[in-house]
Amino acid sequence: MKTYTRQVQYYETDKMKVVHHSNYIRYFEEARSNFMKQIGCDIRNIESNGIVIPNVDAYARYIKPLRFFDEFIVETRLVKFNGASFEFEYKIVLPCGTIAATGHTAHCFATEDKLIPVSIKRKFPEIYEKMKSQVEC
Amino acid sequence: MKTYTRQVQYYETDKMKVVHHSNYIRYFEEARSNFMKQIGCDIRNIESNGIVIPNVDAYARYIKPLRFFDEFIVETRLVKFNGASFEFEYKIVLPCGTIAATGHTAHCFATEDKLIPVSIKRKFPEIYEKMKSQVEC
Amino acid sequence: MKTYTRQVQYYETDKMKVVHHSNYIRYFEEARSNFMKQIGCDIRNIESNGIVIPNVDAYARYIKPLRFFDEFIVETRLVKFNGASFEFEYKIVLPCGTIAATGHTAHCFATEDKLIPVSIKRKFPEIYEKMKSQVEC
Amino acid sequence: MKTYTRQVQYYETDKMKVVHHSNYIRYFEEARSNFMKQIGCDIRNIESNGIVIPNVDAYARYIKPLRFFDEFIVETRLVKFNGASFEFEYKIVLPCGTIAATGHTAHCFATEDKLIPVSIKRKFPEIYEKMKSQVEC
Repeated sequence: MKTYTRQVQYYETDKMKVVHHSNYIRYFEEARSNFMKQIGCDIRNIESNGIVIPNVDAYARYIKPLRFFDEFIVETRLVKFNGASFEFEYKIVLPCGTIAATGHTAHCFATEDKLIPVSIKRKFPEIYEKMKSQVEC
Repeated sequence: MKTYTRQVQYYETDKMKVVHHSNYIRYFEEARSNFMKQIGCDIRNIESNGIVIPNVDAYARYIKPLRFFDEFIVETRLVKFNGASFEFEYKIVLPCGTIAATGHTAHCFATEDKLIPVSIKRKFPEIYEKMKSQVEC
Repeated sequence: MKTYTRQVQYYETDKMKVVHHSNYIRYFEEARSNFMKQIGCDIRNIESNGIVIPNVDAYARYIKPLRFFDEFIVETRLVKFNGASFEFEYKIVLPCGTIAATGHTAHCFATEDKLIPVSIKRKFPEIYEKMKSQVEC
Repeated sequence: MKTYTRQVQYYETDKMKVVHHSNYIRYFEEARSNFMKQIGCDIRNIESNGIVIPNVDAYARYIKPLRFFDEFIVETRLVKFNGASFEFEYKIVLPCGTIAATGHTAHCFATEDKLIPVSIKRKFPEIYEKMKSQVEC
């Protein structure tokens, strides 16, 4: 599990005066990019080798609204990984410990040009091992 | 079921050259607002009476990527409704009939100030009836 | 001058209960893409030939706020064009005639890989002529 | 002048593989919120007293594109302030010193309900003094 800290921006709120629900999917992505960086996998390097990482699905459950300038922590767990596809789980937590939201996303590796699914096991053994070692059940 | 037609905008794409996955959650919202309008329920009227309609959750499954200027149809179905909470299902379809994505969202009615869940059955009987009559199983 | 009609979406509002100011820059882009389509220039065709159209600058002046579900018209004028760079002016107008915002953007044509400015005069004479013929002073 | 450091997120890129130009307006806002916080003015406090701070205009000039995961610094200067309206100037700088973009925004203070311009000189003398003391020519 890795954590990522963030503050709500004004443009992320909506007329309900809370963060618009679509932005949680973006917070998950930010936390995921940061998770990858923390474990030593730079997504830019993967992409510069012609491999992209599209979402297969995305889910968010909204428990307590986030408001402008709230600070929050995203707890990110890699819960599945087989070299071709993987899944993350997220918990958005306020500094006081209250859970604001939870969610999960599924991803695969794919070729940049035609988005054909591929395994990175042979092509990127180092990334494979780094991600594999992070899987929590 | 109601349909809503839309075209992909440039700012909705990402460096993978497809629509960023978070935007599907926004497409669902657009289709939902339009669904409500089509059945004669203006969300502005509901909100001007102090009732807001937050998301309880949101899910999207990405099947075939949408690209810049693609035209697509969102098919929106109200699948549950009890006056206090309700659920929509979505299908994003290309003009050729290919399904690009599916998803669902859950919502409740809540007071604007403190986001306390409420039923609209007594306060807005007309909206209650209109939505009730649209439920598909 | 070409017109483009649009309705404000919920996710475009902010906690001030009006459209967030950054979204006007996106409305200008939508209107611009639509302008190009109306004059018979498909941006997808230009891009598939390795030419992209980055912004050089962008300006918006906010006169009257747009609110959720407001319908508005963007009036788009091409005011400069020399084959290598060009400028658009925009007016966002409510159905009652009130001006909600104005703005302008400057663009150039550039190679996709390194974003090096190029003229389309020789490579795309047809697009050159179509755009040239639209310039208003 | 205050600085604000940020990293480009994936969802901020577009199919040109650079940050979409509309997001610079959002970066300016982030930097501005942070500027206010650094000088001891919490926008939440101002808003909870019924005063909002709409944009009067916004301008961005794009010099060198930002790409995914680029780190950048926003240098923010308050260049005009009279208690009723004010202007900021921004410079987006890469760690190597290269200027990626510049811009400016104008703002006013206004009542939350009808967005009527007001001066904060009498109502918020402390904020008035703090902002006044930051003005650079």
